[in-house]
Amino acid sequence: MPDLSDKSLPSLLVDIKPGIIDLGWGHPSPYLHPLDDIKEASNKLFSLGERDSLQYGASQGYGPFLESLARFLSGQAAYQTVTRPQELFLTAGASQGLDLACTLFAKSGDLVLVEEPTYFVIEKIFREHNLDVRGVSTDEDGMIVSDLRAKLESGMRPKFVYVIPTFQNPTGVSLSENRRRELIDLADEYGFYIFADEVYQLIYFDELPLPSMREFDGCNRVISFGSFSKILAPGLRTGWIHAAEEIVDKFTSSALAFSGGGFNQFGSVLIKHAIDLGLLEKNTDLLRKVYSNRSRVMGESLLKELGSSVEYTSPNGGFYYWIQFPEGFNTEEFLSECEDQGVSYRPGNAFSESGKFERYLRLTFTLYEEPEIAEGVARLASSYKRFS
Amino acid sequence: MPDLSDKSLPSLLVDIKPGIIDLGWGHPSPYLHPLDDIKEASNKLFSLGERDSLQYGASQGYGPFLESLARFLSGQAAYQTVTRPQELFLTAGASQGLDLACTLFAKSGDLVLVEEPTYFVIEKIFREHNLDVRGVSTDEDGMIVSDLRAKLESGMRPKFVYVIPTFQNPTGVSLSENRRRELIDLADEYGFYIFADEVYQLIYFDELPLPSMREFDGCNRVISFGSFSKILAPGLRTGWIHAAEEIVDKFTSSALAFSGGGFNQFGSVLIKHAIDLGLLEKNTDLLRKVYSNRSRVMGESLLKELGSSVEYTSPNGGFYYWIQFPEGFNTEEFLSECEDQGVSYRPGNAFSESGKFERYLRLTFTLYEEPEIAEGVARLASSYKRFS
Repeated sequence: MPDLSDKSLPSLLVDIKPGIIDLGWGHPSPYLHPLDDIKEASNKLFSLGERDSLQYGASQGYGPFLESLARFLSGQAAYQTVTRPQELFLTAGASQGLDLACTLFAKSGDLVLVEEPTYFVIEKIFREHNLDVRGVSTDEDGMIVSDLRAKLESGMRPKFVYVIPTFQNPTGVSLSENRRRELIDLADEYGFYIFADEVYQLIYFDELPLPSMREFDGCNRVISFGSFSKILAPGLRTGWIHAAEEIVDKFTSSALAFSGGGFNQFGSVLIKHAIDLGLLEKNTDLLRKVYSNRSRVMGESLLKELGSSVEYTSPNGGFYYWIQFPEGFNTEEFLSECEDQGVSYRPGNAFSESGKFERYLRLTFTLYEEPEIAEGVARLASSYKRFS
Repeated sequence: MPDLSDKSLPSLLVDIKPGIIDLGWGHPSPYLHPLDDIKEASNKLFSLGERDSLQYGASQGYGPFLESLARFLSGQAAYQTVTRPQELFLTAGASQGLDLACTLFAKSGDLVLVEEPTYFVIEKIFREHNLDVRGVSTDEDGMIVSDLRAKLESGMRPKFVYVIPTFQNPTGVSLSENRRRELIDLADEYGFYIFADEVYQLIYFDELPLPSMREFDGCNRVISFGSFSKILAPGLRTGWIHAAEEIVDKFTSSALAFSGGGFNQFGSVLIKHAIDLGLLEKNTDLLRKVYSNRSRVMGESLLKELGSSVEYTSPNGGFYYWIQFPEGFNTEEFLSECEDQGVSYRPGNAFSESGKFERYLRLTFTLYEEPEIAEGVARLASSYKRFS
């Protein structure tokens, strides 16, 4: 028998030191895992005796799931894009879809462009594919597309541009409508793809976001990545790609999708039932409400505790506050002071290899309940007073 | 609302023309999907209220699953390798694990070596990573390691060698013990990794196979890929990597594993219960028995219907018969005659880009019940009589 006496292995990805309120993790709190809904969907699957859920699935994904998902997305006020099942492809989550897209659309040494700052792990995924990753500046309307245009005019030829158009990670801002159109025009003109990470699209608070990037995609240049991790349950490892049929065909005919079949057959049968039973819509509505309240609490706490000593824009959706401290402040140095005071976050420079975001930090409000969020911000403010 | 009037999308990967017994697919028959077992494992998960199953999982995989899997493998007579949970990594199936290994261990243009013939989809996956794929000859003892040695001595420097050591796809043969040792010695000497696709290891018939490649791995050069697709249910998209801790750490610290967490958290919690409840062992035993019987039926039918006009070795395990026809016979041309007679298979040249296997074909016995297997072989024989 093996020696099991070594330290036991962790169950979850989150890794938080005891006593710390870690506002760095964009994971849902345990209270928000819809275990009863997944049980109801499972009961449906078993009562119907759906043995197909255990077989190799169609490469594009389980057909009835793609049809239910198309209906769901088409009916979402925050998506605003009529979606046909033929334009959808089942993934094992947005990251898996992006990883496969790297394999299929780029090769070692190719140039790709990302927002500066951007989702910190995606840069590493691109580098694991030996891609040459460069940044494009952003402001309160998202990627500065004129900066991208200048780069293209100066000769840069990216294989794709990775962008988080709605409620961006880490800044929380959304790409304006004009820029969406201009970005797609540039993709058409220069022949690159837009990898649109739209996992926050449905998590809006008071106002509807702009439609999904696919709504503006007249030239079949957009590959949109969606995920059930943000609207149902990360542990199911299920998401989708929404793109023109010719692009979906490229994913569907990939050797990887043929080898194992659809990327999560059992998970997608479960989610099909969750959609058909109205559970996904109910959960998405619930998350919007809960996160909206938590975001409000975080905003009120920031105002109360830090006042005008920092700058930020309250997000209209998504998971994040992006906080700017005064010139010269270093959020990496500040981190250990904060952890001594029982609070943590992600320093700004985690989100860009440019090193330009030393005085920024990112807070999230998804993992903790409201009182802990308020307490976490209070600890952050008290650390700031000691530190500065 | 979207237009759903287009043709409906398929649910499964298999795509068989009406009236044809397609002996080309190595998928389990519907009768073998253990839906009741998965229901029992699900009931356990829900009765325990395991909300962690819906959260982002640990990058290496859900700890309790890795511990149960280590116990299961250590207890399998056909594995013969004491396995520690620290040496295991959760994948979304063997193909996903191999795809990630390509990303982490090779870059565009790198040389990799495979058996000739080999699993036909894996070559395509390697080519999707822009790898330079070359073949090494095989015989009844598997890869001819002296051929590999000659290639290395002549200057070839592969990043990895992909091998299916036990009950190989498509030939059904197993790598001998001497060659296992010699292959690992070469890996150590020339600094390449051995990607050992061991998905058939536990599906033996009368005699135990040689131990897993890890048992011979004194120099931490073996990365073994296992899968629940072959012993439980392909639709769960769950498998594992077994390798030295230093290699497991490389997978665990990959950006992709960090981005989405463990590759199938919900599936692995289910399988942990299937293991602990004894259901995986029961199912593996059942599959061995059923496939052994089907293999015997196929062998008897081949003998009765085709006699000495073809050559093959009855497999000791796995999924495949590899049939050699007389010199000059072309199994690609023969295919349409067979399909006219209501039977299909995979032509030999599907398994190698060398074009050397024109007179071979591969049959499988996993998807059909015994009477259909006998009928399929009878149709093949009758087609052969017409054709030759």
